[in-house]
Amino acid sequence: MVVRLSDVAARAGVSVKTVSNVANGYLHVKPETRERVQAAIDDLNYRPNLSARSLRQGRSGVIALAVPALDMPYFAELTRAVVEAAAERGWTVLVDQTDGLRERELEVASGLRGHLIDGLILSPVGLEVDELERSKEDTPLVLLGEKIAGGPVDHVAVDNVEAARLATDHLLGLGRKRVAAIGYQARADAASGVAPLRRRGYERSLAAAGITVDAELTPQVAGYRRVDGAHAMETLLALPEPPDAVFCFSDLLALGALRVLAERGLRVPEDVALIGFDDIEDGRYSTPSLSTVAPAKDEIARHAVDMLHDRIAGRDAVPARDVRVGFEIVPRESTLGRGQTGPSGP
Amino acid sequence: MVVRLSDVAARAGVSVKTVSNVANGYLHVKPETRERVQAAIDDLNYRPNLSARSLRQGRSGVIALAVPALDMPYFAELTRAVVEAAAERGWTVLVDQTDGLRERELEVASGLRGHLIDGLILSPVGLEVDELERSKEDTPLVLLGEKIAGGPVDHVAVDNVEAARLATDHLLGLGRKRVAAIGYQARADAASGVAPLRRRGYERSLAAAGITVDAELTPQVAGYRRVDGAHAMETLLALPEPPDAVFCFSDLLALGALRVLAERGLRVPEDVALIGFDDIEDGRYSTPSLSTVAPAKDEIARHAVDMLHDRIAGRDAVPARDVRVGFEIVPRESTLGRGQTGPSGP
Repeated sequence: MVVRLSDVAARAGVSVKTVSNVANGYLHVKPETRERVQAAIDDLNYRPNLSARSLRQGRSGVIALAVPALDMPYFAELTRAVVEAAAERGWTVLVDQTDGLRERELEVASGLRGHLIDGLILSPVGLEVDELERSKEDTPLVLLGEKIAGGPVDHVAVDNVEAARLATDHLLGLGRKRVAAIGYQARADAASGVAPLRRRGYERSLAAAGITVDAELTPQVAGYRRVDGAHAMETLLALPEPPDAVFCFSDLLALGALRVLAERGLRVPEDVALIGFDDIEDGRYSTPSLSTVAPAKDEIARHAVDMLHDRIAGRDAVPARDVRVGFEIVPRESTLGRGQTGPSGP
Repeated sequence: MVVRLSDVAARAGVSVKTVSNVANGYLHVKPETRERVQAAIDDLNYRPNLSARSLRQGRSGVIALAVPALDMPYFAELTRAVVEAAAERGWTVLVDQTDGLRERELEVASGLRGHLIDGLILSPVGLEVDELERSKEDTPLVLLGEKIAGGPVDHVAVDNVEAARLATDHLLGLGRKRVAAIGYQARADAASGVAPLRRRGYERSLAAAGITVDAELTPQVAGYRRVDGAHAMETLLALPEPPDAVFCFSDLLALGALRVLAERGLRVPEDVALIGFDDIEDGRYSTPSLSTVAPAKDEIARHAVDMLHDRIAGRDAVPARDVRVGFEIVPRESTLGRGQTGPSGP
């Protein structure tokens, strides 16, 4: 049974207009009247039609965050950071999982079936820039990650090329000669927009060291999960001359590779040094602990929420912004060896 | 700028009522009229007021899932299972993170600020049964986990007492004599409703083997994350007579404990055997791989979605149901040793 404004009005003995004023938080209602109406609202379990209300007030206090996969720890940790940054604005965050599918991303970008969200933070994988132009009139939108840099909307990311270059430099700096990369993807597979950028950084580092990229040392992966890293590591270990170091484009890939190395009785880092990307908690507790590139997730979240706030506040005159946040190379046991680093853990 | 029904009507050259009929999917509109209206809707980027519409149709096609922490892999994996089960019903799932806070759970249970959701699946930590009775008239609700079994709403969970008993039996079956438990919580700390149930199962197993519970072997934890498991393991290793086996109430606790054992140079399982709970992917790839209790997450998700579907369809006459799903003890290297198990991975 739907409780209507008029039911509340009848119970409180006031006009419908007064109930509406109370429900909408207008300030000119007398305290005792407000109390009587509130009691009636509570008794009847009345829920205001937020759609009508938000059309007047322009706000629902709810934003959406859409990420490819909540069961990938990088996105789970980023989600926590966004929820916390949004809480400081008094916003509730609803999270949607797109699986990187273009149709899901389009659906989300055009406003989650018309759901009442004030704004959207989207980490796209399948969408192209020109597809987004069409939805510019829609819900305010901020993009995360590298897929659509330079597009028509606000965008936050780390400099993936530079981060990947420095990660590879770290391995070369240990004196390693055959540095492999796990994370190359065929275009059709591109489960992540970061693949071509991290690939460019890896190749740049090798070029600067006078090393030619060896196609054998860059196996293709179908995705960025543990199972993909394990398969790629098996491929690399089957080579006549296996690598002595591997840059994995995600920590999950590295954790899969680490497991295979342990199964084969190979020592990390003595036989093969490993560095990942993302700085997820799993890598801090693995044995050996995982060297990694740590993007400033909290900064990504804060910038995304701030930019969304500006858009929701109607500052549409500002041109689309492209914000770069910092990152850090974090060497741990998988490149430095045991006893070379302090105790793990946050 | 808000596009109104009348704007669409003017552009399409039809009445507002006709536009409304098209927007609401009524079937008695002529195909050519429908096409003209749809073109006007697309041109103007009109989004129907879903709230008004859903009050008539009773559906938004969106359900919410509220879990304590998306960055805990168990909940991330469960979320994926719910999203997939819901997709089969054509439902979109929006996910909310409560941090196990009573106020957030209450807010969510009373309908996410009146947001347009058809139903809610909630994994509660802080809420009590009597608090929920009040919101029974609200959005259809299904509960996950052990906190509110036997309450006034539908509920899905594994038999945690029995699962914990069998996990402890597994350790005793290896011939271990000092079997510790990591996961006991002071009531005020109860970050998870499962603690008292898994504790009961552990104690039952010991009792059946004629072993008295040793308070020293059951350190309290503040939460169920890796850091909590690491701290508890340090406490256990500082005992004059440390344990030779540990049942951890979650895989994250076990992974934290595993890291500490590796740092101390202790062998798993030779010196200390370990079993966790949850069967998260991390434990399948750790070295040694982690023995665990595997709850049937897909079944939990499917039952939750099916029961919610029944409630949304208005089958309120059915009394609240309490569904138990299966679980499995999965022995891996952390209890059986290397080479005793097949290759890891999913």
